[in-house]
Amino acid sequence: MSKIKKIAVFTSGGDAPGMNACIRAVVRTGIYLGYEVAGIKQGYQGMIDDNIENMSRHSVSNIMQLGGTVLKTARCLAFKNPDGMQKAYENLKKRGIDALVAIGGDGTFTGAERFSSTYDIPVICVPGTIDNDLYGSDFTLGFDTATNTVIEAIDKIRDTAESHDRLFFIEVMGRDAGCIALRAGIASGAEAIMLPEKDTAISELIDLLEHGAANKKSSSIVIVAEGDKNGGAFGVAKLVKEKFDFYDTKVTILGHLQRGGSPSSFDRILGSRMGYAAVKALINGDNRKMVGLRGNEIVLTDLKEALTDHEFKLEDDLMEMSIILA
Amino acid sequence: MSKIKKIAVFTSGGDAPGMNACIRAVVRTGIYLGYEVAGIKQGYQGMIDDNIENMSRHSVSNIMQLGGTVLKTARCLAFKNPDGMQKAYENLKKRGIDALVAIGGDGTFTGAERFSSTYDIPVICVPGTIDNDLYGSDFTLGFDTATNTVIEAIDKIRDTAESHDRLFFIEVMGRDAGCIALRAGIASGAEAIMLPEKDTAISELIDLLEHGAANKKSSSIVIVAEGDKNGGAFGVAKLVKEKFDFYDTKVTILGHLQRGGSPSSFDRILGSRMGYAAVKALINGDNRKMVGLRGNEIVLTDLKEALTDHEFKLEDDLMEMSIILA
Amino acid sequence: MSKIKKIAVFTSGGDAPGMNACIRAVVRTGIYLGYEVAGIKQGYQGMIDDNIENMSRHSVSNIMQLGGTVLKTARCLAFKNPDGMQKAYENLKKRGIDALVAIGGDGTFTGAERFSSTYDIPVICVPGTIDNDLYGSDFTLGFDTATNTVIEAIDKIRDTAESHDRLFFIEVMGRDAGCIALRAGIASGAEAIMLPEKDTAISELIDLLEHGAANKKSSSIVIVAEGDKNGGAFGVAKLVKEKFDFYDTKVTILGHLQRGGSPSSFDRILGSRMGYAAVKALINGDNRKMVGLRGNEIVLTDLKEALTDHEFKLEDDLMEMSIILA
Amino acid sequence: MSKIKKIAVFTSGGDAPGMNACIRAVVRTGIYLGYEVAGIKQGYQGMIDDNIENMSRHSVSNIMQLGGTVLKTARCLAFKNPDGMQKAYENLKKRGIDALVAIGGDGTFTGAERFSSTYDIPVICVPGTIDNDLYGSDFTLGFDTATNTVIEAIDKIRDTAESHDRLFFIEVMGRDAGCIALRAGIASGAEAIMLPEKDTAISELIDLLEHGAANKKSSSIVIVAEGDKNGGAFGVAKLVKEKFDFYDTKVTILGHLQRGGSPSSFDRILGSRMGYAAVKALINGDNRKMVGLRGNEIVLTDLKEALTDHEFKLEDDLMEMSIILA
Repeated sequence: MSKIKKIAVFTSGGDAPGMNACIRAVVRTGIYLGYEVAGIKQGYQGMIDDNIENMSRHSVSNIMQLGGTVLKTARCLAFKNPDGMQKAYENLKKRGIDALVAIGGDGTFTGAERFSSTYDIPVICVPGTIDNDLYGSDFTLGFDTATNTVIEAIDKIRDTAESHDRLFFIEVMGRDAGCIALRAGIASGAEAIMLPEKDTAISELIDLLEHGAANKKSSSIVIVAEGDKNGGAFGVAKLVKEKFDFYDTKVTILGHLQRGGSPSSFDRILGSRMGYAAVKALINGDNRKMVGLRGNEIVLTDLKEALTDHEFKLEDDLMEMSIILA
Repeated sequence: MSKIKKIAVFTSGGDAPGMNACIRAVVRTGIYLGYEVAGIKQGYQGMIDDNIENMSRHSVSNIMQLGGTVLKTARCLAFKNPDGMQKAYENLKKRGIDALVAIGGDGTFTGAERFSSTYDIPVICVPGTIDNDLYGSDFTLGFDTATNTVIEAIDKIRDTAESHDRLFFIEVMGRDAGCIALRAGIASGAEAIMLPEKDTAISELIDLLEHGAANKKSSSIVIVAEGDKNGGAFGVAKLVKEKFDFYDTKVTILGHLQRGGSPSSFDRILGSRMGYAAVKALINGDNRKMVGLRGNEIVLTDLKEALTDHEFKLEDDLMEMSIILA
Repeated sequence: MSKIKKIAVFTSGGDAPGMNACIRAVVRTGIYLGYEVAGIKQGYQGMIDDNIENMSRHSVSNIMQLGGTVLKTARCLAFKNPDGMQKAYENLKKRGIDALVAIGGDGTFTGAERFSSTYDIPVICVPGTIDNDLYGSDFTLGFDTATNTVIEAIDKIRDTAESHDRLFFIEVMGRDAGCIALRAGIASGAEAIMLPEKDTAISELIDLLEHGAANKKSSSIVIVAEGDKNGGAFGVAKLVKEKFDFYDTKVTILGHLQRGGSPSSFDRILGSRMGYAAVKALINGDNRKMVGLRGNEIVLTDLKEALTDHEFKLEDDLMEMSIILA
Repeated sequence: MSKIKKIAVFTSGGDAPGMNACIRAVVRTGIYLGYEVAGIKQGYQGMIDDNIENMSRHSVSNIMQLGGTVLKTARCLAFKNPDGMQKAYENLKKRGIDALVAIGGDGTFTGAERFSSTYDIPVICVPGTIDNDLYGSDFTLGFDTATNTVIEAIDKIRDTAESHDRLFFIEVMGRDAGCIALRAGIASGAEAIMLPEKDTAISELIDLLEHGAANKKSSSIVIVAEGDKNGGAFGVAKLVKEKFDFYDTKVTILGHLQRGGSPSSFDRILGSRMGYAAVKALINGDNRKMVGLRGNEIVLTDLKEALTDHEFKLEDDLMEMSIILA
């Protein structure tokens, strides 16, 4: 591996709050340590389209507090075939870019791993996704902000949940992973949480709600991860209503508002640390690794290992608390 | 009309942020001016059930910042027939309550008007509903907070609206009145607003979106009032998708989170002024009137006049701005 | 007056939330109606320095939710003398600008009035200042957001106000006008409000606090406008502490955080309406007028009249409520 | 140690957001597992005054989202002498309380350690303080919320920081520990951070600011921890102003607003986990231990070890980032 001179950073896949803090840290750390830094727009698509700009300290001023990503993001099918990759490589080469920091989810990591192996260009990945479903980091970038957004929404709904006959179903993000649903459910005192990881029968849910009604609960809030098998919040609401006529049911679909918003302190610090660490890792000669948070420290994990199929498990104590504390 | 000694306050119909500020003002103004004040729980239902408590200055401490209503609210069919009213009257009489402040929407006002006429008990009404659809006040209690809640949600969604093929449909409250949709749409820079007051054809909406796409808008946000004839946000999204294949559509249903939340400064001040003015009006011998905000002043309107069918019109300049500024 | 072809907009004096909504409305309304629109950076200074750019619909995209002003603002002594004005006029003429929209406070209005009279260039002013101290409008742009910012801060302080011996002094903006202090004080349930408009003796304040302590209030919050004669929050705290040893006093100086923040729905709508109305007024041939909100309608007032010395009075009912409800 | 039947929980020292989540978890976990649970009001003072109530699942409903602590807190000198402790012990005995969960800072821990040793009553401590200055846990309860509160305030101030001659000094909590200042400073992109842990000479600060001014920074934000040796934000501002006449300086003292506010998701989850773990630990026979978060897991540390003098060190990478990224 030759000595690095110019690092490029990009975001890919779904955007997540905190990505801008990470971009800023890559740019400023790189420049501070004597490297040139470029920003690639719209992820792999921008690599292919040569949508690339040189970055200065000033070009990342005043972006840390913004949601989304200033480098934009896009899905890119073309990068999955050799021609697309080749085009991308030529653009990087033309611009003297000899190292990459990729911010995104597992799709992003897979592309980065393949590209780096094929063209011998060093890459460090940063886990940026609100879903918190990646191996190698206790928390992904954006998860903390998303969870805060969800509990603020539920707090408001609870304000209005007063008369005995109201039952609220709130659908939150999480197609395969129930991290947001589980944490937001506990943090907002939800009466029940429907997770993709756990098959909750509708009859079980109704038992729980009847038990609450018997205990004179004046209202109940049920969190439903979008990946729930009963068809999301509307699906669950419909099934409950068929068998449990008592309640007036209300549905909220939080949708994409969970992706946005100014990043929390946690995500700004996490993004900054990860961006800083990614540049340091490249300089140290690391390659095809992801940075991650373990405890209060940044660690590196081989992309190969990160991308191996890991059984993803929700925290045991949180699972138990979701029942005990509800 | 005999001299008033004891005033009771209650909330009825849908809850709205700011109701607690109003309750607090009624209690503290009444006591300050030498009257006893009681609180009736769950609106007309509590009147019938004798769910009534004497209030002190202290009993309304630290409630102004809370969403919802500490006196609760409920629908009450029993109050619509003479027996229910008679029972309610007897409970008030038994407790020495000889004047009422009713906080709620037009259903609440109708009940108050009939009850006051039948039993010769003075009543002043306060317009408390997020929908801003009442005659006699520029703004109803709760509308400002609800609109702020909606624009904060849309601001977050806009953060994530970056790739060219995204189209967001956001459903907001408003079965018959598009006040929230119109104001929130303008205040968040929505590309289109679907109002119950105005029949927007789907073809018209698609023209607008195609125009935006042609102008390289990378994303579009469409606000849909729940009373829209096409079936709310999901209905509109489905119809658009059938004809306009290009976009990836995303739906958010804000639902009851619009009713909750800590009241804005505007609603706390409005609730305080209206509660204060309602007590002053009772003392002045006013009866069967509603308090309202006109400009920066509190005015009284006869309930009869307020309850007559008025054509409700959205502001002309706002309607024009919703097109010009989008 | 010749027919207008090109309108320029600028912000001057202290920035206020909602200015961006107003700039956006001026630009989009002007362009929609067939005019060219330019933006002048840093107020009168930019006029003198020829720091002026043509604006397009796109150049004001996605700015409505931002605090501050994208056109920047600055104090400008040079504009007070004839040479500065002459230079400014020449720059406008060179660029074909033949009408102005000025957003700011009374200093801004004074400059605009003089400039317009001297050079016969039509100008419409928009009241943009968080202080709400201008004649001709019930509310100025930014006041609603600032008041919300203050009550959110006080709500947090109240959370922690629990032990009997705590007394909090919170200094809010308002050198000459107590609008923010009065409204925020009522809206947050402050125990006392120190206004520039009203001489509250320290002995009076101590009586009030002792009364509260006797009534077992566990804590007290005192709002102090920065223009208070006792030396702001630190001054009042010191004087109270000398005579009233009982309490542990804590001081918060909110300072410039009151100027910032994403504008509230109220200020976004107000800014949009005022910008829209300012352009309409120019087109109608109005000159040297300010737009203002009266009730729910936009009205025009002659700048001359607006700039005459008016006695500024806080609302009577609010003044009384600040005592009764505390 | 005899078998536990009844656990009491209390909060002591400064309040912190998340304490209510912890109280709720102690109560619900205890009851779920078959124990009685009592709540002691106002910390050690309430133990001495017998200000103790039995808690039910219902008594902790709807408290998780509240700032402060529903059990109140107070300083208590009387507990430091044997008579006070003896009185406290008798009250606990009388009520059948045979185990304690203490939530607070190191003063709270010291009292708990001594009391438990003297009277052989098992106690588990939970680190609740916004200062994040305790050994045995990566994060203390309340720190995350406080840091978010600070960055939201700074974000607003940055909105208004536009003209070249503005310099903002913002004082944040931290008498001995600069955790809040360091993290909030990085997360808000502050130009300089004055920490109690590090002696920054005023001349050094001025160099930095002059460097920024030379680079055409239009404004600068300096975070000052209250424990800074130059006299807090006002002290630093005064010293800078003496030597660096150029700038218009503005001071904000955030004060106690940093302690309040609805807890973040992180603090709600942390409080819930710690309360749950404290009860589990008591049941397992643990004694005189504190619960703490290490990575994503809850761990126990002996109080003796926790209370030994540890050198407290800010994270190395954060210290470096505070310079590189500014």
